[in-house]
Amino acid sequence: MKKTNVYLVGAGPGDVELLTLKAVKILEQADVVLYDALVNIESLYFCKKDVITVNVGKRKDKHLLIQNEINELILKYAKEDKLVVRLKGGTPFVFGRGYEEINFLNQHGIDVEVISGVSSTTAVPESFNIALIDRNYSDAYRTITGHDINIFKAIVTHFHERENLIIMMGAHNTKIIVTHLLEIGFPHDLPIAFLSQGTTENATKIISNLEEVSKKESVFFEKLRSLTPIIIYIGRTINAQKSFSY
Amino acid sequence: MKKTNVYLVGAGPGDVELLTLKAVKILEQADVVLYDALVNIESLYFCKKDVITVNVGKRKDKHLLIQNEINELILKYAKEDKLVVRLKGGTPFVFGRGYEEINFLNQHGIDVEVISGVSSTTAVPESFNIALIDRNYSDAYRTITGHDINIFKAIVTHFHERENLIIMMGAHNTKIIVTHLLEIGFPHDLPIAFLSQGTTENATKIISNLEEVSKKESVFFEKLRSLTPIIIYIGRTINAQKSFSY
Repeated sequence: MKKTNVYLVGAGPGDVELLTLKAVKILEQADVVLYDALVNIESLYFCKKDVITVNVGKRKDKHLLIQNEINELILKYAKEDKLVVRLKGGTPFVFGRGYEEINFLNQHGIDVEVISGVSSTTAVPESFNIALIDRNYSDAYRTITGHDINIFKAIVTHFHERENLIIMMGAHNTKIIVTHLLEIGFPHDLPIAFLSQGTTENATKIISNLEEVSKKESVFFEKLRSLTPIIIYIGRTINAQKSFSY
Repeated sequence: MKKTNVYLVGAGPGDVELLTLKAVKILEQADVVLYDALVNIESLYFCKKDVITVNVGKRKDKHLLIQNEINELILKYAKEDKLVVRLKGGTPFVFGRGYEEINFLNQHGIDVEVISGVSSTTAVPESFNIALIDRNYSDAYRTITGHDINIFKAIVTHFHERENLIIMMGAHNTKIIVTHLLEIGFPHDLPIAFLSQGTTENATKIISNLEEVSKKESVFFEKLRSLTPIIIYIGRTINAQKSFSY
């Protein structure tokens, strides 16, 4: 029988109070916590005094540890019978490589329990009062990485008024993305929101529309890059709330 | 200045331990909690002894209160200066009518604070060990209601190997949905999962593929309806985990 002493835990979008009870409970018991760059460091305040914490944070071009090293490190601690928490931003199976970590550990005879978190994909728009689904405007939303522009173009091929777009890790490709969307018939006045560090005290937003963004100078796109991580949100629900300022 | 004594709170997907710290904190202070049918009743255990709780649960064809009545009830309690929690399954702005409730209250001079929860759309697949994004299989997922089949058909018009589908409230339309997907070129062997009551002790799943489901007799579709609420999940990540039984 496999043993479970590794937990893949979602830390939520940033606000430490958006941790789940289940996450806190396991953090309180953890011997080792390996956490990502996007995890709020305050999450570790729930841990025991003698907890071992490791920042395995990955940011574009600045990997502190490569994935193989992370896998091996989890395995090492798991084999020492330590209670290991692998703490990830948002929720474990939405982007990130949680699934690969589980497969690796399973192959070495170690079971992993997944503890879902509040996903940034939903909570960040909500924190800016933007609805993902609002009966008056939308019936669907598409969550997609903007990192690989060819994949993005292959998947997003046409516009539907009642579907919103949530683009993760796409800030550096903003101009190409917007140009593509206009080319395939997305309306010029369609609202677009750049949501940075949602749910935290550093939260900022830029609201515009596709046409405006397509005409921006490079300084604008450089600014976006500096606000990473950004969620790009596109859809009519951005303007749904009358009190919304933009 | 508007006052905030109404909180629109996500209760998560079912497991009471997936409540956030923030949700629990506000439930502990609440004078009134108006909750939906899909909310785990154990969430109310955190409330004060003298809390007023109202089941405003809505299920298809069995609305306990119609939306107008819910709006008026929240307003009534808010005007009495009570701390009102409107507790919703999952997270407030993903399906449901949270946005409409906020607009109504704003129009009456009452501000509402949104407290995001763990969305069923992400946590339920995760609880069955199904990844939404796994670098080896997918870069995107589409969350859509299956309730209105015409909207569904208008939005889902072609297949891309690296995008998964998450269909909410579509159990009763399963046959039409699957037929449509096959017609527009979704592969016959594409895995489909019916996920019922995920994260709770009554969690059950049915795993199949599009072709198999398209050939099922009516008894199968009746069974699906009996398992409502169901999330229909379609995509290669269902088969990603070797240990997955189906």
